[in-house]
Amino acid sequence: MVRWEPGAAERLREAAMQLYVERGFEQTTVAEIAQRAGVTARTFFRHFADKREVLFAGSEDLAGALQRAVAEAPAGAAPMAVVAAALDVGGRFLGPDRERTRHRQLIIAANPELQERELIKLARLGERLAEGLRARGVAPQEAALAAEAGIVVLRVAFERWLTETDPGDLRAIMREVLTALGKVTAEQK
Amino acid sequence: MVRWEPGAAERLREAAMQLYVERGFEQTTVAEIAQRAGVTARTFFRHFADKREVLFAGSEDLAGALQRAVAEAPAGAAPMAVVAAALDVGGRFLGPDRERTRHRQLIIAANPELQERELIKLARLGERLAEGLRARGVAPQEAALAAEAGIVVLRVAFERWLTETDPGDLRAIMREVLTALGKVTAEQK
Repeated sequence: MVRWEPGAAERLREAAMQLYVERGFEQTTVAEIAQRAGVTARTFFRHFADKREVLFAGSEDLAGALQRAVAEAPAGAAPMAVVAAALDVGGRFLGPDRERTRHRQLIIAANPELQERELIKLARLGERLAEGLRARGVAPQEAALAAEAGIVVLRVAFERWLTETDPGDLRAIMREVLTALGKVTAEQK
Repeated sequence: MVRWEPGAAERLREAAMQLYVERGFEQTTVAEIAQRAGVTARTFFRHFADKREVLFAGSEDLAGALQRAVAEAPAGAAPMAVVAAALDVGGRFLGPDRERTRHRQLIIAANPELQERELIKLARLGERLAEGLRARGVAPQEAALAAEAGIVVLRVAFERWLTETDPGDLRAIMREVLTALGKVTAEQK
């Protein structure tokens, strides 16, 4: 019997984040998350496979958004321009939620298992971007390089956005980091 | 009582690789590896923490070699040139051993847990390269970008070297991929 529980996923996510910050990820149980969200553990498991997935459920949405942006970029755009367009969508996606994202990063940074999971998610995201570029007719090596370069920009910009005081818009930082990467890689002497 | 066993580590590594290819990583036990190498399980554990470490023991040597190359690059070299010098050392390090490296990659590709470990090792390697660049006075963001770009080149070149028929010298491929990355990231329109 599945009852209608408006906003249960959202409340569970909020409760989990609070508890992970307060007590640490490892010390928090699903029962406690459910209790704080005012739902049953069963409801938790209808929304998330385990307590780790609460932190990563958004990654899938982000990956889908980036993938669509790659597919929809103007015909004839250079591979790195396609990736830049995807990053822009990613920035719009993450931009409104700096405080929650900061909490998420703090939780992940404190736990090696979560760090590994984050690395794997990013590697998969790179593979999906490369796949999207190949589907546009980009040669495999070029697709891999542009996609991986995009992931590098994402990581470095993300880190700046989360750690700087008053960093401004994530999308502006991404564009700046992308330009910086172009400069760094061009100077090979 | 530690007896002198000439070349035990090398024989254990050979035996492990053979068994991982023949039976799969998961189906192989330490006892079997030791038996094929003609040593005891105790000897195995004097050389490797577990059967996974047999595959990753070389990564530490590689990381050390790259780190030294970063420290010893000519003063005034651009960050990406420093990374290129390190990659060149890496290529010399891995170059003589394509067959073993291919086997290693096949074993890793067949096992998600090993793939994750490989990703983590590469991420750590990137952090160490960035650290080495910062120690040379490179600004943190530039150091991160050059180091991560180096890891991208390493991965893409490595993949080509291992999968192409008659790929030639790994170092030449790395240089080519580095040039290609420079081109891809420069075209942002």
